[in-house]
Amino acid sequence: MAYETLAVEKTVAGMTITINRPQQRNSINNKMLEEINRVLDQVEEDDQCRLVVLAGQPGTFCTGMDLEEFSAVKSQSETGPVKLGSNLYMATLKRFTLVPRVVIAVVDGQVMAGGVGLAAASDLVIATPRSQFCLSEALWGLLPAMVTPFLVRRVGFQAAYRMTLTTAPVLSREALEIKLVDEISESPFDSVHRLWLRLSKLSVPTLRNLKEYFRKMWLITESMENIAVSEIERLSSDPKVIENISNYVKYGIFPWDKT
Amino acid sequence: MAYETLAVEKTVAGMTITINRPQQRNSINNKMLEEINRVLDQVEEDDQCRLVVLAGQPGTFCTGMDLEEFSAVKSQSETGPVKLGSNLYMATLKRFTLVPRVVIAVVDGQVMAGGVGLAAASDLVIATPRSQFCLSEALWGLLPAMVTPFLVRRVGFQAAYRMTLTTAPVLSREALEIKLVDEISESPFDSVHRLWLRLSKLSVPTLRNLKEYFRKMWLITESMENIAVSEIERLSSDPKVIENISNYVKYGIFPWDKT
Amino acid sequence: MAYETLAVEKTVAGMTITINRPQQRNSINNKMLEEINRVLDQVEEDDQCRLVVLAGQPGTFCTGMDLEEFSAVKSQSETGPVKLGSNLYMATLKRFTLVPRVVIAVVDGQVMAGGVGLAAASDLVIATPRSQFCLSEALWGLLPAMVTPFLVRRVGFQAAYRMTLTTAPVLSREALEIKLVDEISESPFDSVHRLWLRLSKLSVPTLRNLKEYFRKMWLITESMENIAVSEIERLSSDPKVIENISNYVKYGIFPWDKT
Repeated sequence: MAYETLAVEKTVAGMTITINRPQQRNSINNKMLEEINRVLDQVEEDDQCRLVVLAGQPGTFCTGMDLEEFSAVKSQSETGPVKLGSNLYMATLKRFTLVPRVVIAVVDGQVMAGGVGLAAASDLVIATPRSQFCLSEALWGLLPAMVTPFLVRRVGFQAAYRMTLTTAPVLSREALEIKLVDEISESPFDSVHRLWLRLSKLSVPTLRNLKEYFRKMWLITESMENIAVSEIERLSSDPKVIENISNYVKYGIFPWDKT
Repeated sequence: MAYETLAVEKTVAGMTITINRPQQRNSINNKMLEEINRVLDQVEEDDQCRLVVLAGQPGTFCTGMDLEEFSAVKSQSETGPVKLGSNLYMATLKRFTLVPRVVIAVVDGQVMAGGVGLAAASDLVIATPRSQFCLSEALWGLLPAMVTPFLVRRVGFQAAYRMTLTTAPVLSREALEIKLVDEISESPFDSVHRLWLRLSKLSVPTLRNLKEYFRKMWLITESMENIAVSEIERLSSDPKVIENISNYVKYGIFPWDKT
Repeated sequence: MAYETLAVEKTVAGMTITINRPQQRNSINNKMLEEINRVLDQVEEDDQCRLVVLAGQPGTFCTGMDLEEFSAVKSQSETGPVKLGSNLYMATLKRFTLVPRVVIAVVDGQVMAGGVGLAAASDLVIATPRSQFCLSEALWGLLPAMVTPFLVRRVGFQAAYRMTLTTAPVLSREALEIKLVDEISESPFDSVHRLWLRLSKLSVPTLRNLKEYFRKMWLITESMENIAVSEIERLSSDPKVIENISNYVKYGIFPWDKT
């Protein structure tokens, strides 16, 4: 199978998905979300395939929504055929938390906005020391609305709130302390290998039970997920937000630059 | 505008509120809550005014409810005109979490009981190294009922529970670890300044969206807030509690002193 | 009163319960749960008795459900008189969190599976440096279903999830960081003594108020508790799980051993 946005490798334990849009700094577009889900479909067909590793490029895990595509879509007619992938993004995060497989994010370098959600929704996150996580959405007048439920689940309310409000990067050491990262490692794939020695003992039915059960032990409900999708759609239709992003994409002007 | 309990200073970014009841060790009374809300009213009238800093006296941020006033009110006839400010206190904490401005608590020294709530409900808390936080309520037969929702939100269940149960002071370093404090700084106003460089990029509508949204991402509901107010009113009407506090105010006798 | 599974000592402050099944590595059976509840009944009859300390054997706090008894029960006829103590285990954890007394777990050494629940549901946990906590259930195809609500309450979602998924032991230092342990001490009974100097100032009614109130400030509801009991009953009736445990008890074969 061919992928436009990913490099996918079958390993002994499962599948390694490498986000492969270096020209776009590994930003997320609809195509990528579709392809990630296609890989997960494939994984789910094979009970021997129990590990999904999600990795990025050296120095850049994922920088969130592709602003150029966003801007292009938004400048098209409302009746145009292209749609934003909010629902699909949310569904992908949710799927990470429910798919009866182990999902490990291997992070090296920058993780921004929607990229933080991909990590937060993974079962485990292994990061290199030079990794950093940043929720920059509020600077554009947006919110990391779909990231929030999964980030709060992982790091608690205050750490998630602080990241969103301050928009300041969280370095790997702090990320470990707040549990956004589960392990810091110079060689994260070796860490995955080591973890797998133990994780491989869990069967697919056990992983299914475990993930379904833990969902019942926390705050996230379908209603909260719908609130999240509605909020991001509301905000990303705000003319001011569209203008902010468009000015950046076209002219490199940030919202807070004096005009 | 003149304030009895506060010193209020307009700054470039917003307003700095300094709790100014050194004789009463910066304890909280109704007047202070009214005045804090008056400042917030003023702040909300001006979209340029986006930062609220809440500070205390050197060595004493705030020591909670004014026990002398409590005792005086409680010893009056039930039909008397004076009422306790439970609702107003709760409403003030809630307002900190929803007002579309950045609220930063600058803490130096002692923070007790209701003072912990003022910090916990702030968006960010910057504390000096000599700061300490103590929930002493249970010693009087009370509970930090209105503080709890906001404290649990900030530090999680166990840290909030442990503080309430043990009534032991939490020093700045531990406060940072449990996220009751966001930053420790020898010069907290410099830290505010540094934070503001970034925070100032957020617009009032974005702050409103952010705060309203995060409220939907956590446990606190109006129903929980009502439970909190009811509980504190119930406990503070308990004759044993009233006697405990009265004995302390009048004779300096603690509840656990042998009589 | 005589106990089969415990050593119980009345102290000045309250009762010290020592789990006393060294031959069974301090595993939990129905009898032990009944006896712990019997001690709590006794404690509740005496308002002077306000402290319950739960301790284990040197090097082994508690290793969870007695697998031999489980296997014996399960191999009996379905209509047999013996029943598993899921409800009683859950009720015991819940009782720890609501009994108007201070419950302190003193942990030295191994804590596994259901033993983690006994610690997690205690008000405070003091552990020696050599202590470690492990949720091994998933290796058998089970889940720590009844432990989860109380563990999530104590350590947050991610730390509880990670322990369940990885089944890896958490050493004392990490246990302290995630707040599964409240204090590490070489001489934990001295720590209890020190804590008691302050805790002894709280009255029984205050402890009752405090515990009932904090229950309203968190996620655990009767409905969640019922989900937990149903899940463990469902999983422990799974023929595959029964076979896994039976093979281990009879032949020392682990589920992941090649056959």
